Amino acid sequence: MADTELAAMRHAARLARVVLGRTSPNPPVAAVILDPAGHIVGEGATRPPGEEHAEVLALRAAGDRAGGGTAVVTLEPCNHTGRTGPCTEALIAAGVARVVYAVDDPNPVAAGGAQRLRNAGLQVVAGVLRDEVADGALRAWLHGVAQARPLVTWKFASTLDGRTAAADGSSRWVTNQVSRADVHALRDTVDAVLVGSGTVLADDPQLTVRQVGGVADGELAARQPLRVVLDRRGRVPRTARVFDGAAETLVLDTAVPRFALKALFDRGVRHVLLEGGATLAGAFLEARLIDDVVGYVAPKLLGDGTGVLRDAGITTMAEAVFLSVVDVARLGDDVKITGRPVWADSGNVRRED
Amino acid sequence: MADTELAAMRHAARLARVVLGRTSPNPPVAAVILDPAGHIVGEGATRPPGEEHAEVLALRAAGDRAGGGTAVVTLEPCNHTGRTGPCTEALIAAGVARVVYAVDDPNPVAAGGAQRLRNAGLQVVAGVLRDEVADGALRAWLHGVAQARPLVTWKFASTLDGRTAAADGSSRWVTNQVSRADVHALRDTVDAVLVGSGTVLADDPQLTVRQVGGVADGELAARQPLRVVLDRRGRVPRTARVFDGAAETLVLDTAVPRFALKALFDRGVRHVLLEGGATLAGAFLEARLIDDVVGYVAPKLLGDGTGVLRDAGITTMAEAVFLSVVDVARLGDDVKITGRPVWADSGNVRRED
Repeated sequence: MADTELAAMRHAARLARVVLGRTSPNPPVAAVILDPAGHIVGEGATRPPGEEHAEVLALRAAGDRAGGGTAVVTLEPCNHTGRTGPCTEALIAAGVARVVYAVDDPNPVAAGGAQRLRNAGLQVVAGVLRDEVADGALRAWLHGVAQARPLVTWKFASTLDGRTAAADGSSRWVTNQVSRADVHALRDTVDAVLVGSGTVLADDPQLTVRQVGGVADGELAARQPLRVVLDRRGRVPRTARVFDGAAETLVLDTAVPRFALKALFDRGVRHVLLEGGATLAGAFLEARLIDDVVGYVAPKLLGDGTGVLRDAGITTMAEAVFLSVVDVARLGDDVKITGRPVWADSGNVRRED
Repeated sequence: MADTELAAMRHAARLARVVLGRTSPNPPVAAVILDPAGHIVGEGATRPPGEEHAEVLALRAAGDRAGGGTAVVTLEPCNHTGRTGPCTEALIAAGVARVVYAVDDPNPVAAGGAQRLRNAGLQVVAGVLRDEVADGALRAWLHGVAQARPLVTWKFASTLDGRTAAADGSSRWVTNQVSRADVHALRDTVDAVLVGSGTVLADDPQLTVRQVGGVADGELAARQPLRVVLDRRGRVPRTARVFDGAAETLVLDTAVPRFALKALFDRGVRHVLLEGGATLAGAFLEARLIDDVVGYVAPKLLGDGTGVLRDAGITTMAEAVFLSVVDVARLGDDVKITGRPVWADSGNVRRED
């Protein structure tokens, strides 16, 4: 592994993150082409479904300079003719001598790319930055292949004493501007944002990706995630802001987390941001359908009001769902805590030290 | 200011912290004696009431080597004959040439030390590391002089969703061993630990300073803070663990925070650790009698159970008590958040960005 290839893979891992939320059900992949001297001569990341894959874009940018060079790709190049031709053939046709990739393609339909490349005489190196890429841009997509449901990130914003709204129902603003901008950045990376009808009725959120602060405050981003409302009883009026046309909105007439996720997966959704409320989050947690938790905790105290989570089916401290902490960050005065539930039967031991 | 003097003051600031909780109602002070060449030849920190002050101990350790040297002290040397003689006279008698101190003595009875030293021909430098010392070891004592009540630190331990106990009442253990050891270290620095009768009845805590973990797990520290139970209705039975004799225990027949603090101040208490429960904390917060908040947040989710805080008299988000965040620390997987309430009328603007 040349240092230039490792650097190129780090660059590709970053590029792949930029297209998060824009490629599903296809994987968000990035490719970097190095000429024989190790200089970057082309790069690309997966376009929306039906458009080009990363390798094809990167090869197009590189042109003749790809000949004898190296392709650095975050996922094993596909060997499959779907809406686009197989990337393996494009790499071979471009005269690339060597392919370095991070993650093996677990999808039986598209896999076999590495073997096809080797058969064509190319050098192939697999597994470079595998864990970083698998846990990064490709995480939701890989989760979908393995579990046949979208990855679910539950986001909440609360006071230090665990309240999302005050006793009178007021909830603007719990967290500061930095945290709210971070939520919009998070929404920008997912395929869908999901709430229950109760949240729509209580807060009438827009659930779009917008600029927070500055001169462009409130400005809508060009690309928006799907807005999903679980509304089994048809309680949400058509005048709600989620129907303002600023983004696509889907109403599902189920309150069962698993059914909702199945419907979304079938629509191509691979990453869902669950934004509330407490009862819906409790139902997802009880069903073990929360994969990531992102809590924005503001240094405020209320004493009374709405709790973060309700009815998760837990009655005693020993049954508390333990989160493996991924990150703790200060966003101004707020604290952002990111973790992943450790389910007792997953082989991980819940720590009760 | 010589570098050696600044270094000596930093050392003194650390020494003073060691005697926190052991000197009230006297201030926890430390002194370091430098010989004319700038070498440390003696040090000391305030002994319990009736015993020596820091300067006297440090001078005793230095002996003849104090002559022509410098005394570095965290508080202006006292000019007052109480249960011990004035430190100013001891410094003059020892032939010290120069006195460097951090914080002016705000106590009118003991003040005037700097002037007395100057009159005796000593060089006096005031204000070295003043803010650090005033906000450190001397904070509770200075607060007492200014406010005539003890400093109140409210500590809680909760899950990420703001629960201190599960639906069935179980609360052991919310936080991990590192956090629990930290709580014992915090107790070690205060004069008194305060709870309501409800907490005693629900959890039967011992409220002592103990070793957490290791071979000495559970071992009592030699010095214990006063245990205080607010029990207006005489509900706490004599069989409760707070009456186990491991430390002194005081029962106050009031539920009014201000009355309780007055009684404790009159007994010499300068720093109280408020350990719960939610209703008592709410009463203290509503009365604006919480000066510090230390929250230990465990990465766990419960969904139901006891909240951190109740009945603080806050009904809408705009009235939430904002905390100025002093520190965010990771204790293993737990997150410790330390802040100070910013009261709206204190001149600080509550941020609602």
